[in-house]
Amino acid sequence: MIVHGKPSRTVWLHPSQPSIIQVIDQRHLPFAWVIEDLSTVDQVATAIKDMHIRGAGCIGAVAGYGMYLAAIEASHDATPDAHLDRSAQKLVATRPTAVNLAWAVHRQLRALADQPDPAQKISTALTIATEIADEDVACCRAIGQHGLALIRDIAARKAPGEPVRILTHCNAGWLAFVDYGSATAPIYTAFEQGIPLHIWVDETRPRSQGARLTAWELGQHGVPHAIIPDNSGGHLMQHGLVDMVIVGSDRTTRCGDVANKIGTYLKALAARDNGVPFYVALPSSTLDWTMRDGVQEIPVEERDATEITHVEGWDGHRVTTVRVVPENSPAINHGFDVTPARLVTGLITERGISPASEEGLLQLYPEHRTE
Amino acid sequence: MIVHGKPSRTVWLHPSQPSIIQVIDQRHLPFAWVIEDLSTVDQVATAIKDMHIRGAGCIGAVAGYGMYLAAIEASHDATPDAHLDRSAQKLVATRPTAVNLAWAVHRQLRALADQPDPAQKISTALTIATEIADEDVACCRAIGQHGLALIRDIAARKAPGEPVRILTHCNAGWLAFVDYGSATAPIYTAFEQGIPLHIWVDETRPRSQGARLTAWELGQHGVPHAIIPDNSGGHLMQHGLVDMVIVGSDRTTRCGDVANKIGTYLKALAARDNGVPFYVALPSSTLDWTMRDGVQEIPVEERDATEITHVEGWDGHRVTTVRVVPENSPAINHGFDVTPARLVTGLITERGISPASEEGLLQLYPEHRTE
Repeated sequence: MIVHGKPSRTVWLHPSQPSIIQVIDQRHLPFAWVIEDLSTVDQVATAIKDMHIRGAGCIGAVAGYGMYLAAIEASHDATPDAHLDRSAQKLVATRPTAVNLAWAVHRQLRALADQPDPAQKISTALTIATEIADEDVACCRAIGQHGLALIRDIAARKAPGEPVRILTHCNAGWLAFVDYGSATAPIYTAFEQGIPLHIWVDETRPRSQGARLTAWELGQHGVPHAIIPDNSGGHLMQHGLVDMVIVGSDRTTRCGDVANKIGTYLKALAARDNGVPFYVALPSSTLDWTMRDGVQEIPVEERDATEITHVEGWDGHRVTTVRVVPENSPAINHGFDVTPARLVTGLITERGISPASEEGLLQLYPEHRTE
Repeated sequence: MIVHGKPSRTVWLHPSQPSIIQVIDQRHLPFAWVIEDLSTVDQVATAIKDMHIRGAGCIGAVAGYGMYLAAIEASHDATPDAHLDRSAQKLVATRPTAVNLAWAVHRQLRALADQPDPAQKISTALTIATEIADEDVACCRAIGQHGLALIRDIAARKAPGEPVRILTHCNAGWLAFVDYGSATAPIYTAFEQGIPLHIWVDETRPRSQGARLTAWELGQHGVPHAIIPDNSGGHLMQHGLVDMVIVGSDRTTRCGDVANKIGTYLKALAARDNGVPFYVALPSSTLDWTMRDGVQEIPVEERDATEITHVEGWDGHRVTTVRVVPENSPAINHGFDVTPARLVTGLITERGISPASEEGLLQLYPEHRTE
């Protein structure tokens, strides 16, 4: 999407040095715009592990480009195949639970195994890396097109010029993918179509990805929005100020239970209580066909308490960290929660919109029928 | 309650200089413990207006003591009655919507009108100020006793030593009153009785009164607790980790709709969805008998956006403020929301526990029957 007036993805080939890839170092957002050059597999591994980049789609694409750098390095190595394998292991180990990461790396390994010539390996690796990134964009665009229909329906019931007001939680934006994002794809698509919008951006404590990333994305692209505390959504819905909710998903079970950033469940409850449609946008790569009951089965990671007790911000001169609680106060930090399918109006996938149910999902993804 | 090992109220007479009152300057909590001497009506007005002290009960009590200082000042004044009236107006104007403030000031004015002698005026004003503070404490203690029965019931169903886990939102603690608090009164009372407790403290963005004040109170008094993001309560309830919710109230309608800090409604929804009892503790002075439908009738104040966009904390050397959103990002800050009576299990008042309904409240407060 647009940054400082120009289109950008989250990862791309260096414009003049084709053995370097570039990523947005997202740790500095929204306080500084830092582009990082990655010219070795080790640098790529560090960028993923230390969260210079994050988000399922973005991690997968960067790992794909990482294997392209691995192919370049292997061409100078005495044991090129061993170097490729070591690189693959190194990349996969950076975020062990990231499904897209392992998938991208193994896709590269399979493709490169067929290419005996080092130059051909490099060329193939670049082709595959580009494909992975382009497919991620195409997937998000398809989610955007399907979600657009929902937004258009709401806009059609409003007076001309009156904005469709959409609430979102956390960052399921283009920064988490290669472009467009998942929850934001319908928003950017509707914006391209000239539909008036107003986005309520949950700040999303404790890591504040809404306030730091989603608000930055929308602001750069020119989409009207306002940051709200996570506490505000219910009040806004009670007063008819939210037309729909669109969130992303870390993992969705075959029955439609949605694991997403902590607090999503509370917004789904408020949406149901006020008759507001609650949609989840997700690429099918995040569907977990092995699970049914999300609340019981999906493990919820407990993260470091300092994400709650300390806050990073701009003090006027530099980024600094302050403690916001009494000294030594205990805090508990659960990374996400599970929204039961009964609270979800629909799942917006790249193949279309499905009810949040096993039968609904299987109609779109019949290859996962087990009988 | 206990601070640094010693009992404290939020306002008291200076131990050796009886023409000075002392308050806790709450703006510095939890980073510093500052006791402020107030020796003039102007200083009291500033302390209330600039929120050195806050909370309905605390404001009322400090205003009561402020009128005692007014009586001292009036005894040196050429026109003592005019000085008293000016002081009363000055104090009432500091927080025009604070019901307890106007009530305390007018109670003093009425009592002082009967006392022609200046020395007698001073002595009466001190008596009344002490009465107002003591009555606030007695009211909170009564709330604590009634709420204790609920906690004891839950404890009785648990294995010995297993804590009763109570979630609370914002600061309806002793810092908002003179002692004990409203939502915290049952907690402190149960703690005195030796019932094992674990308190989930919502941080309560954007002003973080939970993380800054409630966690500090509980920590000083020795009550086991953990700070959680406002987003976490639903997840904890889904997993059976919350036995009950107790919150305070800014205003409760005669039908039992509860205005309280923004985000309270979301916790009430989660409590209902998971069968967790949701109680509101309130002194009857915050009941608004003129209103019925809280969502429609209670005006919700919109506060400064900087409470969202900027965060105050301890940088290791001093209290500093950092910006936590993109530069110039818009933000919207609603101060509270309304929880409909249908989501409230019961109202814990100083006269007992009532269903959240007009009939329930009128049985406890029959003097407000209109027919």
